[in-house]
Amino acid sequence: MKKTGILGGGQLGRMLLQAAANYPVETFVLENDKECPAAHLCHHFTKGDITKYEDVYNFGKGLDAITIEIESVNIEALRKLETEGVKVYPRPAALEIIKNKITQKNFYKENQIPTSEFITTNSKNDLKQHLDFLPAAHKLAIGGYDGRGVEIIKNENDCEKGFNEDAVLEKLVTIKKEISIIVAVGENGKNAIYPPVEMIFNHDLNQLEYQLSPASIGEKILWKAEAIALAVVKNLHSPGIFAVELFIDFDDNVLANETAPRVHNSGHHTIEASYCSQFDMLWRVILGYPLGYTKSIMNSAMVNLIGEENNKGVAIYQNLEEVLQIENVFVHIYGKKETRPGRKMGHVTVLSNERQELIHIANKVKQLLKVIS
Amino acid sequence: MKKTGILGGGQLGRMLLQAAANYPVETFVLENDKECPAAHLCHHFTKGDITKYEDVYNFGKGLDAITIEIESVNIEALRKLETEGVKVYPRPAALEIIKNKITQKNFYKENQIPTSEFITTNSKNDLKQHLDFLPAAHKLAIGGYDGRGVEIIKNENDCEKGFNEDAVLEKLVTIKKEISIIVAVGENGKNAIYPPVEMIFNHDLNQLEYQLSPASIGEKILWKAEAIALAVVKNLHSPGIFAVELFIDFDDNVLANETAPRVHNSGHHTIEASYCSQFDMLWRVILGYPLGYTKSIMNSAMVNLIGEENNKGVAIYQNLEEVLQIENVFVHIYGKKETRPGRKMGHVTVLSNERQELIHIANKVKQLLKVIS
Repeated sequence: MKKTGILGGGQLGRMLLQAAANYPVETFVLENDKECPAAHLCHHFTKGDITKYEDVYNFGKGLDAITIEIESVNIEALRKLETEGVKVYPRPAALEIIKNKITQKNFYKENQIPTSEFITTNSKNDLKQHLDFLPAAHKLAIGGYDGRGVEIIKNENDCEKGFNEDAVLEKLVTIKKEISIIVAVGENGKNAIYPPVEMIFNHDLNQLEYQLSPASIGEKILWKAEAIALAVVKNLHSPGIFAVELFIDFDDNVLANETAPRVHNSGHHTIEASYCSQFDMLWRVILGYPLGYTKSIMNSAMVNLIGEENNKGVAIYQNLEEVLQIENVFVHIYGKKETRPGRKMGHVTVLSNERQELIHIANKVKQLLKVIS
Repeated sequence: MKKTGILGGGQLGRMLLQAAANYPVETFVLENDKECPAAHLCHHFTKGDITKYEDVYNFGKGLDAITIEIESVNIEALRKLETEGVKVYPRPAALEIIKNKITQKNFYKENQIPTSEFITTNSKNDLKQHLDFLPAAHKLAIGGYDGRGVEIIKNENDCEKGFNEDAVLEKLVTIKKEISIIVAVGENGKNAIYPPVEMIFNHDLNQLEYQLSPASIGEKILWKAEAIALAVVKNLHSPGIFAVELFIDFDDNVLANETAPRVHNSGHHTIEASYCSQFDMLWRVILGYPLGYTKSIMNSAMVNLIGEENNKGVAIYQNLEEVLQIENVFVHIYGKKETRPGRKMGHVTVLSNERQELIHIANKVKQLLKVIS
């Protein structure tokens, strides 16, 4: 059995390990918290820091393959492991490009991949030199995650919210739709592309409300989106799973927003809604099996369960039973003992070929199921 | 989180634990082999003998709930645990009835549940007193599993194959079809019934070829089958998951064959083919959630992967890649290091609403995918 390590033990690791149990593979997890969501589902758990060279290197040596569930890992150690013959998914060179939002934006530019205009900054003062570029999104070059490390800078007054570190200032695009495409790339360069999904935002809270699959977009936009997603993964020259997030503006331009070189929140619905889930797919890539079938079995919606504001402590899933009574929902609780405001605690997938039903039930789940303490 | 133990760490435990990772539950497994399929997927693994009173009692005390993945467990310990407040699924009294094929047959008889005629025997000599009852199936009262402990006795010459222990001699029924129905029973007595599945046998090898869902049966037979399955679980007075195996004869009589008080091989397709899988369903019962939706998302076939004859040793999955290339198959390898003739090493589910396609692909998988050493 191939020995395969995962850097990070959160919900993505957890779902990877649920899928791993369908294949002959020996699994390893490195994570600081021995009670993390993935800790008890692997063959071998190692307590350690995924950002530290020593920890990652010692964990990875002797493994056949290693993958990540978060970008903030020690890339130097992965490079070293790669030279020693450990297969790394994604390749450290691809991870390096993506991990830093400055190199990621430059990557799009160099490869003629449409993306919003941007300027790089290294301080708030620097930011203030670009008032004519506003409104824009200020994004930390390194370390942003799940909405952290991003500030919307509309005018001079907002500049104090900016970052005193390396950052990207991206011109705000007036977005008609935000979509995401998951692409798998095999060791042989072959790829498999999932249908795009559409993010429905609550613009008052600036928060993802739910996600619909497939995205409701015209064929021409679909072609552009697929072409961009494939150009991104082609130019990253790495096997693995990639989530390419895209903006569609009111002129039907499609722009690359951000890419994640790993299994991704926008692919959770594939567990039930696709023939081959994104998690299954990554194992196929790692184990050298043929890529799976990306077609949907049914249309779907996906709702993230997020820790409520002002609630911190042992998690309680309010109205879970009411939600479990709905016939076509699939509940995933990540087993995190403690909830915190904004923390991802689980997700719910809804299957139906009726778009209105998907929207109705997604809203119902959103209103009913609260993670409190 | 409810502390829940599983007696046995085979593939059923493994799939239960894959499903458990969607819910807030702390999992425990008792099994002799620390490299068994379920060992690495639980929170707490205990090495021990599920047939020994001490091992089961010590494992179970302090747990909130306990379930089984095989009948051959120590029932006395479960009874004791039950008196101490541990919820046992199924109830020890129900398990007692089912575990012994003599009490199981008597249970059908006492409850007016149609079943084949039978005689009890305790030796080969005893068997020979019933030549006028032949042809019949001789089944060990206790300990038979996966086809072991069953001999077909056609005539006097076959009597030497019979058992010198307590056994049931069941009159052979000329079977038109063999079907199975999974029923879930909640703590409150509510139940949920899955559509029946149909077993397709290779009569030359007397071996299950594959399974189709739903069974192709007329409405009247369906009603009889459902009525029998519900009568079985109603009279067992126990929450849990039950698989009721039924014979249909050429007069369209429906007869209870055997019942398993646990998740079952005939419910594996529910992982991908149903809204709520049998494994998810058992967690709903144990955790006190509403029962799930038993409707199928799509029709399906299921093929068991069985260790080839004359092959014993480290398992090799011949032609696995060819099978993974088929778009609508789902492969489950149980991670058993060693294959043995007849050992269940995995299964493959096929989804399609075209019955002919299901049959075609099931046969293809059967012919391609071999577990050798």
